[in-house]
Amino acid sequence: MSADFHIRRLCIIGVGLIGGSLARALRKAGCVDTIIGSSRDHQHLQRAQALGVIDDYHTDMRQAATHADVIVLAVPMGAMGKVMAAIKPAITATTVITDVGSAKQGVITQMLTVMETLPAGFVPAHPIAGTEKSGVEASFAELFEQRRVIITPHAHTDPRASAIITNMWQHCGAKVTTMDAKHHDEVLAATSHLPHMLAYALVDTLARMNDRREIFAYAAGGFRDFTRIASSDPQMWHDICLTNREALTQILNIYITDLQQLRAAIERNDGEYLKATFNRAKAARDQYGE
Amino acid sequence: MSADFHIRRLCIIGVGLIGGSLARALRKAGCVDTIIGSSRDHQHLQRAQALGVIDDYHTDMRQAATHADVIVLAVPMGAMGKVMAAIKPAITATTVITDVGSAKQGVITQMLTVMETLPAGFVPAHPIAGTEKSGVEASFAELFEQRRVIITPHAHTDPRASAIITNMWQHCGAKVTTMDAKHHDEVLAATSHLPHMLAYALVDTLARMNDRREIFAYAAGGFRDFTRIASSDPQMWHDICLTNREALTQILNIYITDLQQLRAAIERNDGEYLKATFNRAKAARDQYGE
Repeated sequence: MSADFHIRRLCIIGVGLIGGSLARALRKAGCVDTIIGSSRDHQHLQRAQALGVIDDYHTDMRQAATHADVIVLAVPMGAMGKVMAAIKPAITATTVITDVGSAKQGVITQMLTVMETLPAGFVPAHPIAGTEKSGVEASFAELFEQRRVIITPHAHTDPRASAIITNMWQHCGAKVTTMDAKHHDEVLAATSHLPHMLAYALVDTLARMNDRREIFAYAAGGFRDFTRIASSDPQMWHDICLTNREALTQILNIYITDLQQLRAAIERNDGEYLKATFNRAKAARDQYGE
Repeated sequence: MSADFHIRRLCIIGVGLIGGSLARALRKAGCVDTIIGSSRDHQHLQRAQALGVIDDYHTDMRQAATHADVIVLAVPMGAMGKVMAAIKPAITATTVITDVGSAKQGVITQMLTVMETLPAGFVPAHPIAGTEKSGVEASFAELFEQRRVIITPHAHTDPRASAIITNMWQHCGAKVTTMDAKHHDEVLAATSHLPHMLAYALVDTLARMNDRREIFAYAAGGFRDFTRIASSDPQMWHDICLTNREALTQILNIYITDLQQLRAAIERNDGEYLKATFNRAKAARDQYGE
């Protein structure tokens, strides 16, 4: 982490929970001069400015990105392609561009489609942070403290661009590591995308039952913790599913097979299988969990 | 809730998280004279006595139960039958017996097997409370405050016995409702037993992967909340699975089918299906969750 790290002009496109928290964190760290916000929603940008999250804004994304030293794409992954096309004319040889998408191969593919060659200043990144809430109102400067950020530079990413994005996230208090984009997508499919599918599916299964009122009335603390992530933004998760389709369907297949085996073990009264499974899981959870 | 409710001599068999917390809560409410603990483990009972949770103890369960006005079976469900057989000689026409098992039909069947006819003083009950921790050291008087307790009286349960158990739990701060045992088992399979299976299976699936260290290293807050219940006691959950086998395998079948459909929707890029599912789930979670 460089002590004299500084961004003169930062453009954040999509000033929601992640974009807004990044702006707040960099402001708090005192390492940015001007933060320009952009999105399609004028009123939303006004709120972000009123909250002091951004200094100025443009709904015209190209205008917002012009003369920016660093551009952060913090929009849902389904909107990345359109945003990239809009800002394309503003990208120069020295512009550093990064994103915050939860799946990296899909974002890289979109960038390649729009730009024809991947810009040397493009540093795909994923801050592993968030809450089930969304929107700039939910943003806060400490969101990334002690959290991990994975950057997945492509073959022609300029190491200086990677260093700038690494520094940027470190100044937000995050621990930055580098990973291959494909491997990132597999790891995140397992640890984040799969659990979200399980929670969404569980709440939906129960919500479609006849006695759903009674069922939810008797749900206790464990159920609430377990299903909290089912309150996450449906549009965002729609985008993640479709962007990380391959890795997610693969881990879902493995999980469904495992769950079918567990169900079969219960059906045949196989206590040994159950104890072995639960013991392995508890040991792993106790070892790796908080 | 009767203001002059009082238990002269209470016997708690199994002084763990639930049994210990019940003892602490009744003591705090000042509505019990003497609490006798029992279990197979002498040292464990000594600790419970040293912690002030119980007044006295016997490892001989029959002896512990003799002259008790209320007997609470707070052992794992797999041990219920043996415990019932051990205390059978101590049960008189006026003894009130209850349990805290998470599946009611199985406990009732065990009682019927041991006693030949269901005692009129037998009030099957289930406090929906607990943490992922276990043992008397984790017990605390407030565990049942504002939590639900379901009692599932059988056809010949004496209403006076039901009133005593209802009163007992109300004095712990719990909200007591009555339910048919079969319906209880279905509701709990959906809200508690199924989520535990999903969490155990998820952690186990990931723990058996080659890059498990990396996977767990990148697991964020949502994953930790989601998998907390996978730290629960494996023996207890082994017992719950086998005791509530029918309802649990049934809801697992429904869930697996739903999850397969979600996976298929991701595979065929069916964004509408995904958005509809996630929106329904979020709406239900936001409505019923905390």
